[in-house]
Order: sequence, then C-alpha cells, then structure tokens
Amino acid sequence: MPYGEIDQLAINTIRTLAVDATAKANSGHPGAPMGMAPVSHVLFNKFMKFNPKNPKWVNRDRFVLSNGHGCMLQYALLHLFGYAVTLDDLKAFRQIDSITPGHPESHDTPGIEVTTGPLGQGFSNAVGLAIAQAHTAAVFNKPGYNLVDNYTYTFFGDGCAMEGIASEAASTAGHLKLGNLIAIYDDNHISIDGDTKCAFTEDVTKRFEAYGWHTVWVKDGDHDLEGIEAAIKEAQSVKDKPTMIRLTTTIGFGSKLQGTGGVHGNPLKADDIKHVKTLFGFDPEKTFVVPQEVSDLYGKKASEGAALEAEWNKLFEKYGSEHKELHADLARRLTGKLPEGWEKKLPTYKPTDSAIASRKLSETVLESIYEAVPELLSGSADLTGSNNTRWKAAVDFQPPDLGIGEWSGRYIRYGVREHAMAALMNGIAAYGTLIPAGGTFLNFVSYAAGAVRLSSLSRQRVIYVATHDSIGLGEDGPTHQPIETLAHFRALPNMMVWRPADGNETSAAYYMALTSHETPSILALTRQNLPQLEGSTIEKAIKGGYVAHEDKEAAITLVSTGSEVGLCLEAVKFLAEKHNVKARVVSMPCVEVFDAQSKEYRLSVIPDGIPALSVEVMSTLGWEKYSHEQFGLNRFGASGPYKEVYDKFEFNAPGISKRAIATIEFYKDVKPLRSPLNRAFTQLI
Amino acid sequence: MPYGEIDQLAINTIRTLAVDATAKANSGHPGAPMGMAPVSHVLFNKFMKFNPKNPKWVNRDRFVLSNGHGCMLQYALLHLFGYAVTLDDLKAFRQIDSITPGHPESHDTPGIEVTTGPLGQGFSNAVGLAIAQAHTAAVFNKPGYNLVDNYTYTFFGDGCAMEGIASEAASTAGHLKLGNLIAIYDDNHISIDGDTKCAFTEDVTKRFEAYGWHTVWVKDGDHDLEGIEAAIKEAQSVKDKPTMIRLTTTIGFGSKLQGTGGVHGNPLKADDIKHVKTLFGFDPEKTFVVPQEVSDLYGKKASEGAALEAEWNKLFEKYGSEHKELHADLARRLTGKLPEGWEKKLPTYKPTDSAIASRKLSETVLESIYEAVPELLSGSADLTGSNNTRWKAAVDFQPPDLGIGEWSGRYIRYGVREHAMAALMNGIAAYGTLIPAGGTFLNFVSYAAGAVRLSSLSRQRVIYVATHDSIGLGEDGPTHQPIETLAHFRALPNMMVWRPADGNETSAAYYMALTSHETPSILALTRQNLPQLEGSTIEKAIKGGYVAHEDKEAAITLVSTGSEVGLCLEAVKFLAEKHNVKARVVSMPCVEVFDAQSKEYRLSVIPDGIPALSVEVMSTLGWEKYSHEQFGLNRFGASGPYKEVYDKFEFNAPGISKRAIATIEFYKDVKPLRSPLNRAFTQLI
Repeated sequence: MPYGEIDQLAINTIRTLAVDATAKANSGHPGAPMGMAPVSHVLFNKFMKFNPKNPKWVNRDRFVLSNGHGCMLQYALLHLFGYAVTLDDLKAFRQIDSITPGHPESHDTPGIEVTTGPLGQGFSNAVGLAIAQAHTAAVFNKPGYNLVDNYTYTFFGDGCAMEGIASEAASTAGHLKLGNLIAIYDDNHISIDGDTKCAFTEDVTKRFEAYGWHTVWVKDGDHDLEGIEAAIKEAQSVKDKPTMIRLTTTIGFGSKLQGTGGVHGNPLKADDIKHVKTLFGFDPEKTFVVPQEVSDLYGKKASEGAALEAEWNKLFEKYGSEHKELHADLARRLTGKLPEGWEKKLPTYKPTDSAIASRKLSETVLESIYEAVPELLSGSADLTGSNNTRWKAAVDFQPPDLGIGEWSGRYIRYGVREHAMAALMNGIAAYGTLIPAGGTFLNFVSYAAGAVRLSSLSRQRVIYVATHDSIGLGEDGPTHQPIETLAHFRALPNMMVWRPADGNETSAAYYMALTSHETPSILALTRQNLPQLEGSTIEKAIKGGYVAHEDKEAAITLVSTGSEVGLCLEAVKFLAEKHNVKARVVSMPCVEVFDAQSKEYRLSVIPDGIPALSVEVMSTLGWEKYSHEQFGLNRFGASGPYKEVYDKFEFNAPGISKRAIATIEFYKDVKPLRSPLNRAFTQLI
Repeated sequence: MPYGEIDQLAINTIRTLAVDATAKANSGHPGAPMGMAPVSHVLFNKFMKFNPKNPKWVNRDRFVLSNGHGCMLQYALLHLFGYAVTLDDLKAFRQIDSITPGHPESHDTPGIEVTTGPLGQGFSNAVGLAIAQAHTAAVFNKPGYNLVDNYTYTFFGDGCAMEGIASEAASTAGHLKLGNLIAIYDDNHISIDGDTKCAFTEDVTKRFEAYGWHTVWVKDGDHDLEGIEAAIKEAQSVKDKPTMIRLTTTIGFGSKLQGTGGVHGNPLKADDIKHVKTLFGFDPEKTFVVPQEVSDLYGKKASEGAALEAEWNKLFEKYGSEHKELHADLARRLTGKLPEGWEKKLPTYKPTDSAIASRKLSETVLESIYEAVPELLSGSADLTGSNNTRWKAAVDFQPPDLGIGEWSGRYIRYGVREHAMAALMNGIAAYGTLIPAGGTFLNFVSYAAGAVRLSSLSRQRVIYVATHDSIGLGEDGPTHQPIETLAHFRALPNMMVWRPADGNETSAAYYMALTSHETPSILALTRQNLPQLEGSTIEKAIKGGYVAHEDKEAAITLVSTGSEVGLCLEAVKFLAEKHNVKARVVSMPCVEVFDAQSKEYRLSVIPDGIPALSVEVMSTLGWEKYSHEQFGLNRFGASGPYKEVYDKFEFNAPGISKRAIATIEFYKDVKPLRSPLNRAFTQLI
C-alpha cells in the first residue's frame, strides 16, 4: 500500500507531541523527534514486531534510541502504540518521579530497552542486544522452531557517531557479521556546537564500510517514506553484515528554525509552535492532540503484535513437548533465576590449600560453574590469558564462517575495546537470556566508566572481571596500577565492588554477582598469589565483611581487603611478638554488601571501644567510613617486582604494625570511642 | 646512500638490547621492539630532528610510542643516540626507582615526550602535539623565521587501533588536516589474545581514509628500509593531511616464536635468546652489547642534532631583534611562567553582586584573562554554549581553507569526543607552549577517565571545565547527574578538583589551575545560579578551604562546596531562628589544596571541640576525612526542575538543619572531640 495522508498525519502527531511536551516542560530536545518521525513511523508501523501489552516478550524486535536526548520521540511512540505510557505521562515529561525522564531509563518506563542519553552508549547496547539474539537463537532455535529471530534497530546521531565507544562497537559488530542489527544514522549535520562541519567532516559511510558493514543512503529522510521502507527491507535481506542506513534529515523539520542548532536542545517558541501546528494541519490552540485515525492505525499494529506474541506462545508451548530441557532452560532464564543447585559447584578452600592469585581463583570458579550456569557468557578485552576469563572447553562466539567459533559460543573476544565491552555487556544483559562477564585490568575499567555507570543506573546483572588490581601487578608500573579505581566505583550507586582475599571469598563474590539480579559487580582480582585464610568461608564472605581473626582482648581492629588481608594477619603476629599487642582482623571484600547487613551484625564486626585501622594498597578515600585511621596509597605506584613495590610503600607486617601502634596510642584518651559505623543519622536512600 | 650492513647492525643492536633488558627484568615486551627496530632506525637516523643533549628544545621533532609496552625500543634508542639514559638504566629496566619503568613516563626519563602504555593514549597525544605545533607555528613563525616546523611521529599497534580514543583522535586529526602528523601503524596481526582475526578484521587503511588521512602501505616492514624511507618522505610531502603508514611487520622478528603472540608480552627463553643473537651475528654469551660502529653512527646523528639546535638558537636570537615581543613571549612560555600581572585581570565580586551560575562565572574569567594569557587555548567537546568556554572574540582553531577559523585560533571544537579531548589536551600541554582548557559536562569527564588519569600521572597543566556538576542540572536527569565523579577524581593523585561556590572562588580556581605547573585541574561548575558569598575572597579561596561564616559560639561546623555553600548559609539562619543553634560554615572548594596548608591553618578552619557536618549533593565518599558526619546523595538523582530535585533530596535549609541537630546531639558525649583533621599518623607521599 502506498503511503498517504494517514501516514503523514501519524508522523505529524509524533512531531507535535514532542513539540508540546518539550514546551510544557520548558526543557528538552524537539529537533531529533521532528526529524526522525518519518523513519520512526515506517519502522514501527511497517517492520517492528512488538506487543505493547507485554514489553518483555522475548522475541520482540529491540529498538534503541542512542540519541537518547530525543526521547520524546520514543515516549510519543510508546504512547501512541499503546504501551503503559499515558498522555498524562507525556505531560509530565522531565518532571520529578515521572516515567518520562529527561533521557530514557529502562527501569522506569515500559518499552524502553536500555538507558540511553550518554552518547554512543545506546548504539553499543544495540550491538550487545544483537549478540545476545544471535547467541540465544543458536542455542534455542530448532528446525520448525524459529523461536528467536528478532532484529535490533537503533537510531543514532552525529554525537554518537563521534564517540569512540560507538566506533569500537561498530568495529566489533562488523567483525561479528551481525546481520540482525540495523542502525539508522540521523545524518542531520547538526550537533550542539552547530554545523558538524566545525568538527566532524569524515566520511561516516566509508568508515562503516571499513568496519565491514553494509550501507544504504536515503537522501531525503524527511519525505521519502518509500525510500526508507526499501532501505530497511534491503537491510533485513543482508544476513551476513550489519547495516547502517544513512538517513539524511532536517533537524526540527517544520520549525522556523529547522536545520539549525537552534532547534536541537531548546523547546520551540510560542509563535514557532503555532507555525508548526498550522503547517501540519493541527489546531494551533490545542496541545497533546492524538487524532483518532492515528490511534486506530497504531492500535491495529498493536493488535497484530499481540497476535504475534500469542502465536509465539503457542509455538513455545509446542517446543516444550519436543525439546523439553531447552524449553525449561529458556523459561527459567526469562525469570532471571539461576538453575537449582548451581551454587554447589562453587569451589571451597581450606587454609592448607596453596596460595593462588585471585584471577586464577576466578578462573577456577568459571571452570566449575560454566556447565551449571548456561546463561553465563564470558569474555575479555584482549587479555584472556591475563584475566583468566576462559574455561578450557570454551567455544568462541564468532560467525561460523570465520572457522574460529560458533554463534552458540560462550566466549567473546571483545578486542582492545573496554568501553564498548561494557556497553555490549549492558546490551547482552538487557536482552534477558544471558549474564555477561568480561575481563580487563582493573585500571582499564576506567576506560569503560561511562558504560559501567549505566550498568549501575540501569540495573544490569553484568560482571566486570578486573584483574591486576593494585601495585601488586608489579613491573607494568604506575600507568597500569590502580589507585583511584576502587574509590571511584565504590562511590557509584548500585555497584558491588568485590576485592576477595582468597578462594572462598572469590566464590562468594561470584555467588553474589550472579544472584543479584539488578546490581552489577566489579571483581577486583590479583595478579599475585594469595594464601587461603584461616577464617574464611563463602557464608561469611557473602556478608560483605566479617571477622577473619578474632581476639577478645584486641587493642585494634585491622580492616582490610584482598591481598592486604593476608598481610594484616602477618601483622597480627608481628604485633604480638614485637609489641605484645593483640589485634583482630576484618576482611571486607565488599563494602556495599556489608552496608546492607543489620547494624547489630556490622557492629559485631567493627565494634565500639577499640580503634580500627583500614589497610588497602590504594587511595584511602572512603575508608574513614569503616575505620578511625587509614593506611593506603594516595600517590601513584612504582614499576618493579611486586614484593619490592610493596616494601617500598611499607605494605608489610612492620609497616602495618607501626601504624597500628600509632592508632592505638592516638585513640587511647577518647571516650566513648565509637565504632565508625555508629552514625548520627541515616543517609537517604 | 643505500642501506647496508651498518644499518642492519644498528637495527639488530636495538633488537638485542630489548631482548637482553626484558630477559634481565624477567618481564616486559620484546616483540614490538624487535618488529619495529627497522622503522625506528630509518626514522630516527634519517628523518628526525632532535638534540639528545637538550631533550626540551622546542623545535625538536616529537616521537610518541603509543604502543608503550614496547618501551624497550624507545629506551634503547634514547641510550644509543646519547640521551641521558645509560646502559645501567637499561639494565635496571622495570626495577624500582629506575628511569626505565614498565611503560614510558615523561617526567622520569629524558627524551620521553608523553606517558604512554594505556592503549590509544599516545596516538591521541600525538594529535595534540601536532595541534600545538600548528598553532605555535602560526603564532610565532614570520617570513625568514621558520622557528617552529617540527613533525610529530607516532608508532601505534593493533591495540591502539582498536581503542575508541584513537578513533576519536584520528577523526579529529583528519578534520584538522594536520599535515605535520605522521602515524606509523605496526600492522603485525598480533595482539594479546593472539591473531587479530579473532576480533579485529576491519580495513584500518580504509577507515583512516574515511577520516581524511593520506595512507601508504609498506608491505615488508622487516626488510624494506628503502620502502620505509620512501613512505616517510611521501608522508612529509603531504601537507594538507595527516599520514598513516601501514607497516606490515613480524612481531618478535628473529625469535623462534616470531609472528606469534608468544613473543608479545614475555621475555624470550634462554635458547631463543641464543638463537636470536646468533642469527644477528652477535655473541650469544654477551649481553647489552653496543658495537662501536653503531655508537659512531648514532653519535654522528646526535652531533648533527646539536648543530641544528645551535643554528636554531642563533635564528631565535636574531628573531628577537626583529620581533621583540613575540620573542619574549615564546621565551617566557618555554619557562612555564605566566605573564607578569596577569592575575590582576581575574574578576572579583562583592556580596551585593547578582547570583550567577559558576559556568557563567568561568566564562567571565576566560573573557577577562584571554588577552593577558596568550598561551591559554580553550575548547569544548561540542558543548560550547553550555560549558561557556568561548570568549566572544575567540577565533576557532581550524585549517584556514575550511573558512571557519585559523591555525592561530585559540578555540578548539573537539566534537563529541571527550576521551580524545583529554588526551589531545595532554599532548597540547606537553608541547610546552600552551595551556589547554576543555569543556564538557562533569558527568562526561568520566568518559575521559583514562586520559584524565594520565594528565595527573604525567603532570600536565590541563584544565577540565566541567559544567552541569550535580543534580542541580535538573531536567536532563540521572543519566547526566554526577554522583560518583568528584569522589573518583579526588581519589586520583595529583589532581586538583575545584568546586567553587561563587565568583571569587571561581577566579581562585583559575588562579591555581593556571599557576600549578605540574598539576591538572577539574573545575566543577554549576548550571544554576549561585549567590556571591559574604566571606569569600580570592586570597581565602586559594587555600582550598576557609571559613565562610564564623561564629565563636558555634555548636557545629558545616563543611561544604559549590552550590551547597549558599544553602549552608541559609541553614545557619534557619538553625538560629528555629533551633537557637549557632553554626559556622566552611567553604572547601578544593580539598587537595586545603590538604597542602599548614596543620595550624587547617585546624583553624575545622577545629577541635565541635562536630563537623559535610554537605555536598553527591556521594559522601571521602568526606569523612573533613567531617564527623556527612550529608550527601549516595543514590542516583532525578529528572525535574532543579529546585524540586534539591527539595526531593532535602538539600535545603531545613534538611541540612535537621542533620546538623542530629550531629550535635550525637557527639555531645564524646571527649575529647577531635577535628577529623587530627590523625594518628601521616600518610606516605
């Protein structure tokens, strides 16, 4: 059927809703919605497979608005197609506690797949969603059961195209030949600083071709609906490459300021709004108007979507009779729950077991659980042998024709692309059938900070395997030795930062990381060997902090993490022998989890009456919360054999003991000496 | 002169030094030095202009080893050409306190231009160095005085090519048509995970062409010295584009494991070392051998370099007679000192002046000082109108033929490329004639974390203008509202994090940022208006923290920063009126600078005897160091008008007062109540 008036009406309805909502909020970005309304109409109404009544249907097509500032486009679409986003929600755009915040947030709004806005993230999430689709299809699809065959669509603008993270993700997607991924580039020549010619004159199409993408150019994205349709059809037909559709549009189409930066990030002025509405045949005096014909058209599409899901549900049921185990596995995965009894596979250790680096202990965990937890997908940013992220029998996730892996492979070679790795993992987790774990050095998790933040904000179960976690990496030196990194991520809300001290704590870290459905984790792991502690068990460690060495007559509590817990236990002996001082040791592998325990428990760990000294070989920032005094490293490290580096900074039994004595001395006269956990008031959460 | 035996001997000397040093350290990366020795020989001996006796000569060619793990290549070259890097230094490779650490660090080693290792950084620094050259040349070169005409060369490998930061930087360099930049891509098909075909199959050459680069391919980088020479000549001849030379090499050339990942990151085994040395005609029993012929050859080159500088010095002297002011300006800039009296231009404010957003106050500083400080180069990552980084009369730094700027322009349009912006600024600062300031939202400084870390580690005077610094940005919502960011960068050594509360403090922040030669700064600035404080002056604020409101009978000290200082002053009134409680207020715009004050001064600001409550509308992490209790936001923010967001989280006079009362109550019984600044021992520095 050729495009006609009703299509134009639908497009202009999207536009005027965006105009009205940004005007009412007196804030927001009308330009992108007005420019991208035509492609949205064609994509959502002609191509996309979704059921607004069940935004979580696993085989829905995924849509990601990477230029998330244009979210009124998406909110308008969600409303018009009948998602649980009302006209009142649109009227509450950018208001406190609305489901229509300034940028799309997946946990707030039905139909939003991933949280976008920070540029380049959504595009990269889309690559992750496409990876998850390809893998899930390979695992579950069987002859006659094309259960998982959705596409992932993403819109991105010049801003995303400039961001390095999107370059990394695009290169990865090209390598992986993700034919299920269709990215539409809003080529409107405008970014916040004005015309892109001031900073961005590269040939984007050629760049995507260099990455191995198929490309199409729709030259008139404002009007050529047939051309848009043909481009998307062509993209769907290319099965062995992702497609980038360059869509040349006019930002703020219809506005007096169309095609300029003036329409990017500010609501239209009153007279311009009248101008736009008159131009589009809308009553200039009315706001938030949805013509009945548009409701009907999109309502029909929504019903078709509901029917599609119903059909799929039947197919899935039938699948259950032929492929019982797979059916049960997929059904289980969609609940987010792990298989019954998986945790029994977690390795445990006795103090007599040999000293092992925690990166190696992590490898043992993966080796032990990978069969029991089939949704676990591991990988590394080109540090496989250093991160120890790959179980021996792992198959790489690769396009089969490369001859080095399979779509069903569970190990991803992310390349030296930390930022994209994190954003891909966010997309993989958001798909709903997988739990991604990805490795790099702890220091280079910082390269991924933008995406790590979104793991937390959008509540994705993502695991960062962050090895070489301190000056203990030795010779690589200060450029690679984290100082600020743990403080950074401990300050990030909804992130568990684990720094296990031995084998049992490493198992505990994985237990919590895998069972915390809405919280990502960073596992900070050593390069150097660590002894197995006397006092550790998985049960104790999953409380985040516990007493590793008790002494009722102790004059001080040493609070420590990871590689320094063993040193503190050495210091206990040193203090007893050289100073006749008794000390107790607390291992605190995860402060966030410790904070969630009862106050009674916490005070039993770090009690009133004696001073506490924290010991961690990096920035002391934040340790004041758990200790009276802090021993750390508030400077950059040094290149050398790791034991020498530790000695240089006095991280050894005498160095710790010296500071313990000073601490005991200093707090002798304070009455009452309260535990640092005793606070005057409770923080808001 | 055709290449002959002596050239091969020099190349093999570089190789065997790298083999010996990594073997002695039992750590390091021999593969890249062995593969890149030929191109290094040709580049350093035939092309590069440098004087080993004065590594700071301003018109030297810059060389950046972006694949910094291959630093034994560079250390060997520095030694062989006669820089102050001895054979003993090579023998101390990767040992504590040596000048040959695991990755090159510019402040440690003569001849190292920038600190590299974290992949993609060096390449991006090179773009910054080339920008600085182009700008400095445009400002100082005059007919007959080609004072500044150096090239910037960089080596980079597959790892750098995969990193998004390098993509951003390459796109920028292409846009800017930096003909003075020559990047040599070590196309050896090997990264840590093995063959690049597992993750990196894009067409790198085509990608660089898409960015607007000239490209050349040398197919046999192991042997074809003539080809290498021709490629570099061709690159030099292309004046309107940067050049990327794809150099296909064999990693670990000469080793039994050449061409494999086995030679990337591990020293060669003993038998392989013998094999290599025998192959190269070296005595397998001897280590660290430098044949006299090689010393002579490179010594000759070094003498030529010294002569070149002597010639240049004469030219510069003559320049002084014709262009006195320019001469004085350049000479001054090379000392790192600012022009006499520049600080008198800094704006000051009275309490009666109107409330102004600190991003706007920052703009006023730039507007006031740009003429007095000609080395200041501003810019933004596509947020010019939001960051307020551009003075009105600013000219863009652009290739003149684009018609939108000049090489002498002092405003850089970085595009939406935060990570590259930071690394470019590191390169610009490292050049030695400029001080770069670049804007983005505070939240997106995190995208640049990898490069920001290197600003600190390599001690670059770089200024991050980080606006929209809190939930006070309002409607854009949690995706854009920093929570963890200040804690992150406060934990980073050698970084000044400024969060000024008003106009005088903003001027103070710039004063310190510009006069701290070896410390970068982040200026966290508000979107919303801030009142001018009663008690603020530049003199007080440059101490990092000071008493903004004193009361000798105060029951509590409120310690605050930026936008919350004004709220604390409101709380003082509220506490007096509603609770009959007196409070004092400390403004702490920069904790790092405050930490550097005398203990006496610091204790006068946060004294013993009364409790202190910190108030900052983001993560409380770290505030325990300056206060007994903390009021902050340890969760993500909300999208809405900013005053409503502040009220939602109780950041207002009643909310602060409530917590102040609780704090006073809680500490009533503690004797002695020490200032949190009183510590049991001093941290190592």
